[in-house]
Amino acid sequence: MTTLTTPPIAPHPSLTSTELAEFVQGARRRVELALGRFVPEPSDDPSADLPAQLSEAMRYSLLSGGKRLRPVLALMAAEACGGSLEDALPAACALEMIHTYSLVHDDLPAMDDDDLRRGRPTCHKAFDEATAVLAGDGLLTLAFEIVAKHTRPEVAARCVVALAEAAGPSGMVGGQMSDLQAEGRTDATVEALESIHRRKTGALLRAALRVGGLTAGASGDILQALDTYGHAVGLAFQIVDDLLDVEGDEAKLGKRARKDSDLGKWTYPGLLGIEGSKARARQLADEAVSALEPLGDRGARLRALAVDLLERDR
Amino acid sequence: MTTLTTPPIAPHPSLTSTELAEFVQGARRRVELALGRFVPEPSDDPSADLPAQLSEAMRYSLLSGGKRLRPVLALMAAEACGGSLEDALPAACALEMIHTYSLVHDDLPAMDDDDLRRGRPTCHKAFDEATAVLAGDGLLTLAFEIVAKHTRPEVAARCVVALAEAAGPSGMVGGQMSDLQAEGRTDATVEALESIHRRKTGALLRAALRVGGLTAGASGDILQALDTYGHAVGLAFQIVDDLLDVEGDEAKLGKRARKDSDLGKWTYPGLLGIEGSKARARQLADEAVSALEPLGDRGARLRALAVDLLERDR
Repeated sequence: MTTLTTPPIAPHPSLTSTELAEFVQGARRRVELALGRFVPEPSDDPSADLPAQLSEAMRYSLLSGGKRLRPVLALMAAEACGGSLEDALPAACALEMIHTYSLVHDDLPAMDDDDLRRGRPTCHKAFDEATAVLAGDGLLTLAFEIVAKHTRPEVAARCVVALAEAAGPSGMVGGQMSDLQAEGRTDATVEALESIHRRKTGALLRAALRVGGLTAGASGDILQALDTYGHAVGLAFQIVDDLLDVEGDEAKLGKRARKDSDLGKWTYPGLLGIEGSKARARQLADEAVSALEPLGDRGARLRALAVDLLERDR
Repeated sequence: MTTLTTPPIAPHPSLTSTELAEFVQGARRRVELALGRFVPEPSDDPSADLPAQLSEAMRYSLLSGGKRLRPVLALMAAEACGGSLEDALPAACALEMIHTYSLVHDDLPAMDDDDLRRGRPTCHKAFDEATAVLAGDGLLTLAFEIVAKHTRPEVAARCVVALAEAAGPSGMVGGQMSDLQAEGRTDATVEALESIHRRKTGALLRAALRVGGLTAGASGDILQALDTYGHAVGLAFQIVDDLLDVEGDEAKLGKRARKDSDLGKWTYPGLLGIEGSKARARQLADEAVSALEPLGDRGARLRALAVDLLERDR
């Protein structure tokens, strides 16, 4: 094993939730601005290469005020590794585009058949199915263009690999396939459920930490620490999602509550009960916090975020 | 303008169509083998990360004996620029994955609603719509993973940009959107039709030449020559496609003939007539051949291919 490159662990200064919120809001603002720049506005010129309706559909789905968790995690990881937010921004935006494309496709009638997303009609409802398929395809493709074009080449290739592995057939796309196949099946186990979530949502969250670290030039040990953190936070995030689906407020969620349980989807509360699920989420948050020890003080924001994610109501 | 880096133009040795066919068949064999390796076979283990049905659907669509025109062009361009076929192979496979994903999504009921592709039921007919959407998403994502993972990093990033620009919202995806929007509209012009084809099929064909050149370390001038060639060959290819749709043999095509004209799609024969279309295709093939002058003798195979594409019957 190689030696850690970080200084010995110092007592972690506490970070108030206001300080965390300020960083998160600043990061979100940067991401919103960059996303708006990366997807051009519809052109009045009917002979423009980018069709106006496609641009509208992509921007409709992308610029609709999501939590921006993945780009925020990437920026936070870059900052924790001593990198610049500017260098991490293209990869951060690519993550949000990949996340958004997956929502647009998952919402399609042939998939989860959802009418509401982030508080508004889903893409295929606001436009039509063909446009939604193409808007998703366009966002996924643009994500790779942006990270490859605006990141240093040797880092860009590694970021593309990290994003594609996380989003691809053995990652997010595979998780969605397994999730669809599991619907209504009665042989659910915690292991099978975690396998789905590890791929469907966890993989891209881990990739967010990884690309943040990569753009900051982090060492293998630090990338490993970020990965362990990402894995634990990703599962905890999903458990809280499942809990919100059972207990949450539809107006705050911006989507239909109790939809997963109605559809016969496997959920943590269904398998572990509500208290059991909360305990598992707390345990994972502890694991996430411990994993960050190699980062020392610089991991304070990521630590605070892990705790904060458990408290969210949407 | 920078100086050309190639030797002065020598008289081009003629290439027999048998010699061309031998190269093409050898290139196809390499591509088939590599594609089969890059998309893992379905696993018996139900807890495998790659769901068996997703792997089956991806392989069903990808390994179904297409012409492999895009990878063959990439390998031919690499060879014409003095590069190795091995170095170009990952990008070549990525091209075929991107092409196949676009066919899978374009065939969906909400898009072109096709039942037959490469002589077999389309992906959503052989499996189901959700699986077809995900298989397409998986192939597109895997394409970027493969080129980024198996190409030298500084070249990989440029290949990813070339592929993503060609396949993205201002390229292939935008061309498909414009094509859908044009259906049944009566204000067709040759310019509008060429704008659609330049994006829908032309952009990826040009990218094939470009990534071939990039992996071979070609200079800017040579990349420009390949691009002009790719542009002309791409349009000529589409004109021949339209002519085959009108005049072709369904058994050889492996898809329904006269489908485009039945759907009210804009076609070259519809706008220029059959003879006019043939003349335009010949003119473009001449342009393609002339563009290759900077490559000298090394461009012989690409020259022969441009002529050969006009003679095809499927």
